[in-house]
Amino acid sequence: MKDRIRYAPLRDKITDPATAAAHIVDGTNVFISGFTAGYPKMIPMELARRAEQGENFKINIYAGASTGELVDGLLSNTDLVNWRRPYMSDRTMRKKINNNEILFKDDHLSRLSSLVRCGDWGAVDVAVVEAVAITEKGHLVPTMSVGNTPTYVKHADKIIIEMSQSDPQGLEGIHDIFIPEDPPYRMPIPLYRTADRIGKPFIEMNPDKVVAILESGEKDTCAVFQSPGEIPLRIGEQILDFVRHEMKQDRLPKTLPWQAGVGDVSNAVLSRFMEDDFFQSVDLYSEVIQDSVLDLIDMGKIRAASASAMTLSEKARDRFFKEIYRYREKIILRPVEISNSPEVIRRLGVIAINTALEADIYGHVNSTHVMGSQLMNGIGGSGDFERNGALSFMVTPSMAKNGAISAIVPMVSHVDHSEHSVDVIVTEQGLVDTRNLTPRQVAEAVIKKCAHPDYRDLLWDYYSRAVHKVGGHEPHLLGEAFSFHQRFMETGDMKI
Amino acid sequence: MKDRIRYAPLRDKITDPATAAAHIVDGTNVFISGFTAGYPKMIPMELARRAEQGENFKINIYAGASTGELVDGLLSNTDLVNWRRPYMSDRTMRKKINNNEILFKDDHLSRLSSLVRCGDWGAVDVAVVEAVAITEKGHLVPTMSVGNTPTYVKHADKIIIEMSQSDPQGLEGIHDIFIPEDPPYRMPIPLYRTADRIGKPFIEMNPDKVVAILESGEKDTCAVFQSPGEIPLRIGEQILDFVRHEMKQDRLPKTLPWQAGVGDVSNAVLSRFMEDDFFQSVDLYSEVIQDSVLDLIDMGKIRAASASAMTLSEKARDRFFKEIYRYREKIILRPVEISNSPEVIRRLGVIAINTALEADIYGHVNSTHVMGSQLMNGIGGSGDFERNGALSFMVTPSMAKNGAISAIVPMVSHVDHSEHSVDVIVTEQGLVDTRNLTPRQVAEAVIKKCAHPDYRDLLWDYYSRAVHKVGGHEPHLLGEAFSFHQRFMETGDMKI
Repeated sequence: MKDRIRYAPLRDKITDPATAAAHIVDGTNVFISGFTAGYPKMIPMELARRAEQGENFKINIYAGASTGELVDGLLSNTDLVNWRRPYMSDRTMRKKINNNEILFKDDHLSRLSSLVRCGDWGAVDVAVVEAVAITEKGHLVPTMSVGNTPTYVKHADKIIIEMSQSDPQGLEGIHDIFIPEDPPYRMPIPLYRTADRIGKPFIEMNPDKVVAILESGEKDTCAVFQSPGEIPLRIGEQILDFVRHEMKQDRLPKTLPWQAGVGDVSNAVLSRFMEDDFFQSVDLYSEVIQDSVLDLIDMGKIRAASASAMTLSEKARDRFFKEIYRYREKIILRPVEISNSPEVIRRLGVIAINTALEADIYGHVNSTHVMGSQLMNGIGGSGDFERNGALSFMVTPSMAKNGAISAIVPMVSHVDHSEHSVDVIVTEQGLVDTRNLTPRQVAEAVIKKCAHPDYRDLLWDYYSRAVHKVGGHEPHLLGEAFSFHQRFMETGDMKI
Repeated sequence: MKDRIRYAPLRDKITDPATAAAHIVDGTNVFISGFTAGYPKMIPMELARRAEQGENFKINIYAGASTGELVDGLLSNTDLVNWRRPYMSDRTMRKKINNNEILFKDDHLSRLSSLVRCGDWGAVDVAVVEAVAITEKGHLVPTMSVGNTPTYVKHADKIIIEMSQSDPQGLEGIHDIFIPEDPPYRMPIPLYRTADRIGKPFIEMNPDKVVAILESGEKDTCAVFQSPGEIPLRIGEQILDFVRHEMKQDRLPKTLPWQAGVGDVSNAVLSRFMEDDFFQSVDLYSEVIQDSVLDLIDMGKIRAASASAMTLSEKARDRFFKEIYRYREKIILRPVEISNSPEVIRRLGVIAINTALEADIYGHVNSTHVMGSQLMNGIGGSGDFERNGALSFMVTPSMAKNGAISAIVPMVSHVDHSEHSVDVIVTEQGLVDTRNLTPRQVAEAVIKKCAHPDYRDLLWDYYSRAVHKVGGHEPHLLGEAFSFHQRFMETGDMKI
């Protein structure tokens, strides 16, 4: 433990969880590390213990994005959370947000650090951050994610550090920490290529603010990846075919970096890269690095992989830790305001692939609210990438719940990405490039190519009646626009 | 005329409209100058003449944004338009787009030049551009707008120039022409302050591509501005009060540049500046410069005013032309991909003010489609500014059509700007800063503060039933979400 605290004066701050967590009381704004991985574990467990012993308090939790069971699950189950921002994916927390028992505002991930810096979120009372080391000068080396930690540490009144014993010190050097300037009079973010390193390999920290250091043996909850099924593979294949075609026609440069959201389709696209000779020397400019990236690095296909976090399966994590010195050459972990920076995404010309909950016949996309009202996880970084990428894909299997739900609907029940920000819609059925089509042409193509055959007639019936009864540039029957959703809520099936 | 063609070899290209327009035939892609102002007039008149004489042909028209009666009106009336992009505001054209007689795709204005450069819009057959001069080296000095003209001229197979005799040569020097690089390997747009000039005062042109030069005595249709009514003034006042408060609380820097869309509210905000001692040395980083900017320059309140075009009343235009050497010191006209650049808007930290057709209780905004189906004008630059500004306002009078329409509805009938991109909603009734509110808190505040009192009970009834019957993070009754719109379409009044 002490060898990881290379700034000797801070060794006096080593303490126990109860003493450390005493800095957190009712109403405290707690800003934590974590972006799918790299979140604190000891402090949440101690807070949950206090709650279970009958202490009555609530805190506000701000992270980089989602965390694991030990934060969002545990703190929700013990009713400790007042506000939570900016993103989560925990089942209990989701339920409580939808019940209005936890306050939540869904926001683009790229925005948050700057809002904290301008004081918009209130005082940064306590930052709780996971680290693998403290440098000789008292700076912080984070673990498997960066998220908003640099800004949280910079603005915190008090800092509590959980020194992870399960993450290797070899992680030092993988991070690239740069806090952009705020307006006015700011200069460009000096990142011009995916592989560029523009900052320091540690988070600058004022050691005087550190009130406690804990030894942590806890590990991140690992991701579970299955080998991609037929539907994600079909989607991935169509994307690669389309991009290859655009590149061969000279409408798209061959060396644009790729972003793929977390999940099956993303993994499927990446696994298709492995088998494809056309795509060599791939740059990834994304949010999260998943297992398949390690395979691609091993095959020599990755020029650089940039993200704000790594989410690996247990097996992949062991492999990564074992050969960290080799993987570190290719992987860069950045603050989320850089990994998701609209300025940088636009400059690099990222090819963006994100998952829709549902898309409508005119190309609007719902990423967040099931049946219009129930929050799923949040918009995350999808808006940052879809709106700013050089080419943006929205993907979804054409049906869900064994066919009871069509992912293509007359009108989405919640819009996160408007028709203006979505270029290409893909299901396992087919792909529609909306960029040069009128809304009516989009509708006709999406019904024909993307919708599942079981739903085509129903969609066509809606569309053709909307055209004849109402007309207009984007014909809708407002009284029936949500008829698919209403049927599902009444009968459990959008078809009946 | 000849003194305006300082590159002598091009003087041979002076010809008549019929000869020039012969380069445009059925199916020609015609890329024209024009962004509210500065559009060609002679060629459209000649094309209309040919149509009236019975020639049967259609063309595709691509401009910078909207144009005047002599382009969009005349060419629509003579049924000459197949495709029109990217924005228009003409009554006849609007009708034909809604009838699917003219093809139209609504897109962010900032996107278009880059799509043309990558070949996405097809061949640039003919560029038709209005100019005040051709330089000694054969380059082009545009008139009152820049729009997409630099890219159109660069990529055109043939160029037709309309040399305006009604615009003074003193306009030379007001333009700043910079075509950004395309990905990959591109560098930042080197614009760091509103006043920066980063390009050349002319549009680079290959004179060999010029096939015709016409002498034009036609003028742009002038804007008609009325002195702002009580409602826009109330909206403007609240915006300035709010911004002043945020600045005094140190949550917003004092020197951020402003953008205000075209129209009454924008003019009202600017006219409030005149009376307000708090706001001095204002930067405007906007799309269009209107009359009130000249007043502010005269008062010494403007540090720099940057836009892609000037739209002035007849009286203001005379005044501007008369003292152009003085105004030119403060005004910069840029390509729309620079004036509306997400990268630059974000870097500068623009305070954005745009007009909504309607907003819903959760903060989603419809800018484009009346009753969900009928296109009004298009999204224009509102998405570029709202999504990327440091603080973004969406403004609308709380009612329209003498109270028969509420601008605050349960759910907007078309989403152009999602809740994630809109910070503050303002009507003459009040203002809601949504940035730190949950959707339910937004709804309660918007109903109470922004909705007109005549509609508050109806909105509250919808919202409270949605909360109790459906619940969720953003409670909606999908069967009634458009009940306001349906009532209006049935009875002519949203209330009854």
